[in-house]
Amino acid sequence: MRPFVFINVAMSADGKIATRERRQTKISGEEDFKRVDTLRAESDAILVGVGTVLADNPSLTVKSEALRKWRKIHGKDENPMRIVVDSRARTPENADLLVKGEGRRLIVVSENASAERVERLRQKAEVLVCGVERVNLRVLMRELWQRGIRRLMVEGGATLNWSLLSEGLVDEIYTFVGNIVIGGKDAPTFVDGDGFTASEILKLALISVEMIDDGVLLRWRVLRD
Amino acid sequence: MRPFVFINVAMSADGKIATRERRQTKISGEEDFKRVDTLRAESDAILVGVGTVLADNPSLTVKSEALRKWRKIHGKDENPMRIVVDSRARTPENADLLVKGEGRRLIVVSENASAERVERLRQKAEVLVCGVERVNLRVLMRELWQRGIRRLMVEGGATLNWSLLSEGLVDEIYTFVGNIVIGGKDAPTFVDGDGFTASEILKLALISVEMIDDGVLLRWRVLRD
Repeated sequence: MRPFVFINVAMSADGKIATRERRQTKISGEEDFKRVDTLRAESDAILVGVGTVLADNPSLTVKSEALRKWRKIHGKDENPMRIVVDSRARTPENADLLVKGEGRRLIVVSENASAERVERLRQKAEVLVCGVERVNLRVLMRELWQRGIRRLMVEGGATLNWSLLSEGLVDEIYTFVGNIVIGGKDAPTFVDGDGFTASEILKLALISVEMIDDGVLLRWRVLRD
Repeated sequence: MRPFVFINVAMSADGKIATRERRQTKISGEEDFKRVDTLRAESDAILVGVGTVLADNPSLTVKSEALRKWRKIHGKDENPMRIVVDSRARTPENADLLVKGEGRRLIVVSENASAERVERLRQKAEVLVCGVERVNLRVLMRELWQRGIRRLMVEGGATLNWSLLSEGLVDEIYTFVGNIVIGGKDAPTFVDGDGFTASEILKLALISVEMIDDGVLLRWRVLRD
């Protein structure tokens, strides 16, 4: 048993999520911003990799006051649980997602993480040890299910997306394709990591196509073998 | 004066054009195949980089007999001129695009290319020397215009796409987004090369969105500053 897992990403027309200097750049617009905010509000938890925390320092809060109120009315915290996959406990203690907005935080580390760093993070968030060298994502998903997480939104980055997809832990993918070209063989793409070999390639089914802002939202379902 | 230049590419949902082993993989289907064949037949020339020749050995011929006849009726060769950007004259003499199908071939080399290799290629194709260390694409475009090329189709790969886009030599981009994830930080993407920095990012305007086969065809116009 694991939550329903979906990845939401904004990428350039050539599949990049940031420039080669890892500078986040405006890919979508106001309408997509609201769509993402609603997705957050409707999720039980939001998952990111520590690389994204270190590069972008996102707060991952629900921005709309109306949506935060709607969550409160339904007996939830204003923000979904914010979860960082962080094998070596590198999340800074002053990261925005640890200090901004109401709601629970979970830092998921491996047994390999420094005890001192883990102890410091425990002042700011719940810390879950899960996996020996690296975070074991399958076990994490089971843990999250047991904690009542039914709908899990993944907001990157490229390496976590790869890990989840390659382990078969993703149900749907929503890509906003923006009206820009970023280029660069070293720029982060929507899915990095090792990549699939020709025989392993992951199959999707198109759910819907929608024009939003100056780009296109593609919704895909991940097909199981 | 230069030809109208468009890039046509099939990429995975994560922007890759091949696996990390540079293995071409089936991204589109029958309907897209026909669309690409028609684009070829309607073009005066098709441009590829030598990397694509070495990796995929494409013939770049028009596959439909009806379209080849249509070209003949209009006084053209069965296939558009096939052009390889090949600074160091690495195109193999037995490359499919040099030996398969009727039509002119142009290998564009730099002054840096070995005279011996150039001489051997001259047995199979016209060779144009254009640029000192690397092929000068701006000069090439002027040359092509003077040779009557008005409509130029670019069929990759990632490095040539980058060179053309970064030099402002592309008018439109057609990306077929297929229903697969390839992944991989080292897998070739639609646009590789150095990549744009945050301040240089190239802007596009969406022309159209069309569902084809099991994917989506996005047509973009490149905006000038």
